[in-house]
Amino acid sequence: MKTLTEEILDFNKARGWTDGNRDARNLAISVALEASELLEHFQWLPGKQAVEQNRDGIMEEAADVYIYLLQLADVAGFDLDGAAREKLQKNALKYPVPAGGHE
Amino acid sequence: MKTLTEEILDFNKARGWTDGNRDARNLAISVALEASELLEHFQWLPGKQAVEQNRDGIMEEAADVYIYLLQLADVAGFDLDGAAREKLQKNALKYPVPAGGHE
Amino acid sequence: MKTLTEEILDFNKARGWTDGNRDARNLAISVALEASELLEHFQWLPGKQAVEQNRDGIMEEAADVYIYLLQLADVAGFDLDGAAREKLQKNALKYPVPAGGHE
Amino acid sequence: MKTLTEEILDFNKARGWTDGNRDARNLAISVALEASELLEHFQWLPGKQAVEQNRDGIMEEAADVYIYLLQLADVAGFDLDGAAREKLQKNALKYPVPAGGHE
Repeated sequence: MKTLTEEILDFNKARGWTDGNRDARNLAISVALEASELLEHFQWLPGKQAVEQNRDGIMEEAADVYIYLLQLADVAGFDLDGAAREKLQKNALKYPVPAGGHE
Repeated sequence: MKTLTEEILDFNKARGWTDGNRDARNLAISVALEASELLEHFQWLPGKQAVEQNRDGIMEEAADVYIYLLQLADVAGFDLDGAAREKLQKNALKYPVPAGGHE
Repeated sequence: MKTLTEEILDFNKARGWTDGNRDARNLAISVALEASELLEHFQWLPGKQAVEQNRDGIMEEAADVYIYLLQLADVAGFDLDGAAREKLQKNALKYPVPAGGHE
Repeated sequence: MKTLTEEILDFNKARGWTDGNRDARNLAISVALEASELLEHFQWLPGKQAVEQNRDGIMEEAADVYIYLLQLADVAGFDLDGAAREKLQKNALKYPVPAGGHE
């Protein structure tokens, strides 16, 4: 079974989108633009209400952010899941669990 | 083995970060802010050069976008990988492969 | 003659948009969203080409950023022009002109 | 007395910042990045509280958005105030005042 990144790259290749879509700056811009389209669903609404009113739109924009993020990771040569696990470890050192745990 | 989302939720729970971090609007704002920090690495540099000069910083900011995105998906009740595969199918209908394929 | 801020406030008042539009967080989100719509014109194009192809669209999105920014300044109680002049003075100390001036 | 745009251009010229700072795409990216730094002050706080706790920081980031926006307007060849007044007129047609005014 193909990974999601492989599916995205195949999708682009079949359409000849292999030029601008392989430039890391274009991809970083695109991640930011899609993140704003995601945020647009929350412009005038509290979180819960926005999700109730437009869960499908939110899901779709979140997917767009993720699709560009996976392409950027591929172009820059890193694994996104691995990067997230590394970041969690780094955060764990930066924000240690309070002694006795959190009540 | 725990999923990445489970690891993030456990991380937050251990630190008592279970209030603001469970609000979808806060999370959507955070996704957008981290996407901008990612883009900041490309503010004055072409894509290749930015990646060469600061691959670690890019990896870390991409991880932050992803970590907030997974939390938003969890709060809104969808699976991010599933959402991306659905979006690719939708895009496939919107942008059909040219007859004879792309050369 | 009315200032631009006064015109915007009158515009909103005439339409009863005096609630959400007076919340600084909503306005900061809106500034960021409009800034992204501005950037969207440059997603796949070099700067010059984007301006040539869509100067009107760029002008309109820049106006939207500015209109929300003026509202945010009004709600937060500061003058945007004054803030910019102060920032330039601060930047002048941070980035002194090289001795002999720049050639 | 010099306009704010003239002051910004003189500031840049004195420091030799006349290359990347004259590219519309770089400027549009910078507007978006500064808008996010502005929004960062509101990441976890309601509007009023954010303004009370960090009015100076908000003022400074708003100034940065504005400074880049003025440069972009200059490079693209339009007047920002004029663009905003035009946009208000356009919005007035799009959102007519309800008959009898708003109560």
